[in-house]
Amino acid sequence: MTDARWMAAALALATRGRGSSAPNPNVGCIVTAGGHVIGRGWTQPGGRPHAEAMALAQAGAAARGATAHVTLEPCAHASPRGPACADGLIAAGLARVVVAMTDPDPRTAGQGIARLRAAGIDVAEGVGEQAARTELAGFIRRMAGQGPEVTLKLALSLDGRLALPDGRSRWITGEVARAHSHLERAAADAIIVGHGTWATDAPALDVRLPGWSGRQPARAVLGSTAIDGILTLSSLAELDDHGWQRVLVEGGGATAGALLAADRVDRLLLYCAPILIGDGRSLAGLALPDLAAAHGRWRLTDRRPLGSDSLEEYRRNR
Amino acid sequence: MTDARWMAAALALATRGRGSSAPNPNVGCIVTAGGHVIGRGWTQPGGRPHAEAMALAQAGAAARGATAHVTLEPCAHASPRGPACADGLIAAGLARVVVAMTDPDPRTAGQGIARLRAAGIDVAEGVGEQAARTELAGFIRRMAGQGPEVTLKLALSLDGRLALPDGRSRWITGEVARAHSHLERAAADAIIVGHGTWATDAPALDVRLPGWSGRQPARAVLGSTAIDGILTLSSLAELDDHGWQRVLVEGGGATAGALLAADRVDRLLLYCAPILIGDGRSLAGLALPDLAAAHGRWRLTDRRPLGSDSLEEYRRNR
Repeated sequence: MTDARWMAAALALATRGRGSSAPNPNVGCIVTAGGHVIGRGWTQPGGRPHAEAMALAQAGAAARGATAHVTLEPCAHASPRGPACADGLIAAGLARVVVAMTDPDPRTAGQGIARLRAAGIDVAEGVGEQAARTELAGFIRRMAGQGPEVTLKLALSLDGRLALPDGRSRWITGEVARAHSHLERAAADAIIVGHGTWATDAPALDVRLPGWSGRQPARAVLGSTAIDGILTLSSLAELDDHGWQRVLVEGGGATAGALLAADRVDRLLLYCAPILIGDGRSLAGLALPDLAAAHGRWRLTDRRPLGSDSLEEYRRNR
Repeated sequence: MTDARWMAAALALATRGRGSSAPNPNVGCIVTAGGHVIGRGWTQPGGRPHAEAMALAQAGAAARGATAHVTLEPCAHASPRGPACADGLIAAGLARVVVAMTDPDPRTAGQGIARLRAAGIDVAEGVGEQAARTELAGFIRRMAGQGPEVTLKLALSLDGRLALPDGRSRWITGEVARAHSHLERAAADAIIVGHGTWATDAPALDVRLPGWSGRQPARAVLGSTAIDGILTLSSLAELDDHGWQRVLVEGGGATAGALLAADRVDRLLLYCAPILIGDGRSLAGLALPDLAAAHGRWRLTDRRPLGSDSLEEYRRNR
């Protein structure tokens, strides 16, 4: 196995912490010796223990002379909640550490790698960096003071309709697509809808998956005043005030248009049904001066069939 | 090679006659002996010679004892323009003929196969029938008095917009997608737009492909009165009056909506660009009572990337 493949395995572990690692980033770590896996870890719910600590605990004494692949630079800062991972890797006697990206957290920001090297550990950087940066896009944004990564989810027809003219939208997509959207909810720190969707559909905004016993994301309504048991956001700016890394916005058309017009969507999740609706509701409030302004903003990053529907994921080119 | 694979080869030959074989169906024929191809043919421009006559002329005396795979039952009727293909196959001494589908033309309608069998030729039917019926859908419709196969082509954004609010639609898709649409024009007997699109864009409606020296399809404007050099159709019903097998309708939104509302679209060609337009023009005039009415009508039959755009082909479930 090459470094790239071990790092891909560590990235797969990292995804297990999506939506539950806040306030920390969801990191994955895999410790190997002689081509065998001796420890695996990912950031635990609430952010501690860190991925490295989990993997080292599994590896035990076998970690001496071993290699660790970590999706984010090991932290250099101890906290009341646990020791610094750089110190943990040194103490365990690792011979080599491969890191996908440096930690944008100013308390680490290169000091973790420097400490490992000062202790004589061979450190490689930048392996799988692009994938790691995609996985941690929300954390990177938050560290840069840019608020969470915003995913806009839309269920739409081939002709781009989100609902009939009277707002009815149950159902455009089928059961498989709707089940998949619950996986996306589980990966989010918060689920947000506009007040129009709230008023029309009163969606539960919870994760409903067979056997799911994990946390439920925060629920928020945008552009609304007090609703019992639901967070309300008076403006898009308030998205940044809750320490969220990933938020999932589920419409409707006016909210989607407002977010797009403000260029606050980082990721589009389009659940497309093989139907034509014709007269109906679409994105509202996004007005372009010309078609040239529309081009070059989005790149297709995933596409998969979901029953007779299909899911397309686009990311904003920035 | 199995019969299925030879028939697939004959079907590939048949596609070469798309858009130029009228008033005849575009048929393909491959003659083999001992596992080697000794003759290939497809319906020639204007409908004659037929595919079988072309393939037999290539095979010459080697056709004696050979096998022919034909995508449509050989014709049983002689015409001033040429002899019956069933007689030609018998005269050439073929031992075996494999036929994808029977000819819906009442002048043949099973008599071609009967005549081959009466002459002692081993005939197999139904090999590749579904693909052949798809290839000849327009011919089958015309024979049933249902008019041509109608393909609706739309170039649209992810949010289903066909144009900006003022009608500008140049360009939603990129060069690769637009070049592909000229291949589709070349396969059509006629290209049709609505009078709104004609008035806004004055499209040339011709086939522009590097090196193209083939015929140009008929050009027609729907819902319009006399335009110099252009056919005008006063209603959808007039689509059926010209002997066309395949027509390509290129919008705009009102024409598309009218065709869909009348359930006169057999095939959807969606050239989708990875852009969001927001406020803009969509399909107009297609109004559904509820979402259930939208489901089950279309099946995805092809999808391919075209530059940064993608092409999706859907066919109507009938």
